[in-house]
Amino acid sequence: MSSTFNFTSAMRQDLPTPAQKWSGFPKFNFVGGHNAPESIPVDHLIEAASTVLAREGQTLATYSLESGAQGYLPLREFLVGKLNRHAGIECTADDILLTSGSLQGMDLINQVMLSRGDVVVIEEANYGGCFSRFQRLGVTPVGVPGDEDGMDMLALEQTLSDLKTKGVKPSYIYTIPTVQNPTATIMSLERRQRLIELAIEYDVPIFEDECYSDLIWSGERPPAIHALDKTGRTIFLSTFSKSIAPALRVGYVVAPWAVLSQLLACKTDAGSGALEQMVLAEYCPKHFDAHVTNLNKLLKAKCDALIEALEAEFGTSAEFERPPGGIFLWVKFPPEVDTTRLAQVAGQQGLSVNPGAEWSIEPDAKRAIRICYANPTASTLRAGVEALAEICHAEFGVPTRSGNVSRT
Amino acid sequence: MSSTFNFTSAMRQDLPTPAQKWSGFPKFNFVGGHNAPESIPVDHLIEAASTVLAREGQTLATYSLESGAQGYLPLREFLVGKLNRHAGIECTADDILLTSGSLQGMDLINQVMLSRGDVVVIEEANYGGCFSRFQRLGVTPVGVPGDEDGMDMLALEQTLSDLKTKGVKPSYIYTIPTVQNPTATIMSLERRQRLIELAIEYDVPIFEDECYSDLIWSGERPPAIHALDKTGRTIFLSTFSKSIAPALRVGYVVAPWAVLSQLLACKTDAGSGALEQMVLAEYCPKHFDAHVTNLNKLLKAKCDALIEALEAEFGTSAEFERPPGGIFLWVKFPPEVDTTRLAQVAGQQGLSVNPGAEWSIEPDAKRAIRICYANPTASTLRAGVEALAEICHAEFGVPTRSGNVSRT
Repeated sequence: MSSTFNFTSAMRQDLPTPAQKWSGFPKFNFVGGHNAPESIPVDHLIEAASTVLAREGQTLATYSLESGAQGYLPLREFLVGKLNRHAGIECTADDILLTSGSLQGMDLINQVMLSRGDVVVIEEANYGGCFSRFQRLGVTPVGVPGDEDGMDMLALEQTLSDLKTKGVKPSYIYTIPTVQNPTATIMSLERRQRLIELAIEYDVPIFEDECYSDLIWSGERPPAIHALDKTGRTIFLSTFSKSIAPALRVGYVVAPWAVLSQLLACKTDAGSGALEQMVLAEYCPKHFDAHVTNLNKLLKAKCDALIEALEAEFGTSAEFERPPGGIFLWVKFPPEVDTTRLAQVAGQQGLSVNPGAEWSIEPDAKRAIRICYANPTASTLRAGVEALAEICHAEFGVPTRSGNVSRT
Repeated sequence: MSSTFNFTSAMRQDLPTPAQKWSGFPKFNFVGGHNAPESIPVDHLIEAASTVLAREGQTLATYSLESGAQGYLPLREFLVGKLNRHAGIECTADDILLTSGSLQGMDLINQVMLSRGDVVVIEEANYGGCFSRFQRLGVTPVGVPGDEDGMDMLALEQTLSDLKTKGVKPSYIYTIPTVQNPTATIMSLERRQRLIELAIEYDVPIFEDECYSDLIWSGERPPAIHALDKTGRTIFLSTFSKSIAPALRVGYVVAPWAVLSQLLACKTDAGSGALEQMVLAEYCPKHFDAHVTNLNKLLKAKCDALIEALEAEFGTSAEFERPPGGIFLWVKFPPEVDTTRLAQVAGQQGLSVNPGAEWSIEPDAKRAIRICYANPTASTLRAGVEALAEICHAEFGVPTRSGNVSRT
């Protein structure tokens, strides 16, 4: 479609970089949080769709069905039980807002909580989409380091104290405590409790993102911060994207009505997609737990395959912790490796990874990459890691040995 | 869920009025653009869901399926043919962005086109959600009157000329040319052509909203402005909400890539719901045209029932044009009727109508109401109009006669 009109000068002048046309997935698609195609419970979803449409398909004639703007009531009711069983959260369906994926939830939460010039406290390695959002919103993220037990509470205390000295009160503490993105760590119970204490002491709300918390190999986890926080300062966000299917855009926020009522006022989309909510509400009570158990087995096998390939191809040149769950591995290379360049060169050769600089504000982020392993097959993971080792060696001389054979 | 944290002071201070908890639909639900429950093609939707999931359900594991961020390709391909057949638009699937309902499309278009302090030109009686959006965005709508052939082009020319004299270039001309909301008028071909000439002369883009354009009793309509505009300055917006089901949140934008690439950059939701797109793409090629033909028969019968009831209950006290399509009637009462108060009193008695002041910036908006007739049955419409006449008479002494019996 051709246009002789000058839209560029007619549009706002502060817009983000325009999107590129989509040209298909790369051969080695190790980014993007996709899931395993073989895990999608197709037959059960067909059964759920048929059953729920036959029973109440006519309600699609009404905006928000018969449930109001917070979303399909039977799905919220399923979540009340699920959140209690899995995360220790006590809430009612009235405390839940269904959103078009957790990202709409995140955007709404940011819309009501953040103003230009604000400061937020976050885990220094974090979801890349957070950093790009903060940049667009004119908000400064202050990073807190962590280890295998999650965010470092001494560092958090120091950060909050330093900010207070400067007269800065953060708009929230954002954390992904349960299978953190990208480190895949699970914050310990003690640290969760300490985080709440500090949030109370410094009078700051908590934004808890539990997108990946269903994906834990052992199935065991501490209660959500939302469950432990008796002051009601925690805004909880999660999704069905990681446990059922990313292309189903159904996320949810659990928060006090003071927050939900404002999120709803800013949610100007006349409701999120009803069919996906209806199908999930029909599917989940019967199948969710068994599905997640099977999914975790499948994901752990892929994770093991990725780790095996990394050990074979990179040896000691690839540092990582064996994750307790999730769909990604956070890998660090020796300091001479610049992963921004690595990702660029690999991208040109059909291999996509997330470079550390887009996923962390820690000082040595540039030697890290995030590899998503849920979507490819084990053999694609293996072939991809081989290709990555080739490219890395050609660009940076690392690794020097692959498959126990010297590259030099 | 109780909270001792003071979210009100932690949140932004410029937020809209918080939402109220939903308490169910009113007995007489004559607002909201709902559709006829009996029109939902439940069996065909079940068939479509089963077929498409069986064939490609596994692609739900991938964000945006195999289609990229513009949305499910087979649905965009259906739209290429549908838009050409119904509206004369020539485009390709690359020119289409699928959105979470047309309202996400509207919000994205506003996000890239509008800055605080801007002016837009619109039909003076218009979709209430436009006015609330402009208010929140700090944008001033300048209204243009119209008649049964749509926006008055002499008035539009005068408006554009006046603005130019003041050094103001509007950000866009917004119009719902085909079954206008709330007047249900269809802009004539000549006026569409004149509107494009004026937009060229004053160097302004056009925002064409065709949400209701499938709902025309005769099935006949002029080409879309987008089709007639050879300069590519028209951003076209539409939806499946009115033709298939409101609770399915699938809308679409047709625009030059200069615009789509910016809408995509601002669309931070990781894609709109895939299942609804897949089901529509499977359903529409076989059934769309026949479904819309039947839907229009059903809607026309409801419209006739509403008009019959209004004539019986209000007589000459209710002024309206018999609409050529749509789901609503724009009714004007004598000047002594204040519809803001009427809607408030009626609302307390379980009867919801849209007061004119929320749906128009014309001088005598306060004597108008919008009645949506698609959702209720004919007998509910009749009973609701009887109740409205009772309330209106009690409050304003109008109508003096109902059912040909004097009320005084």
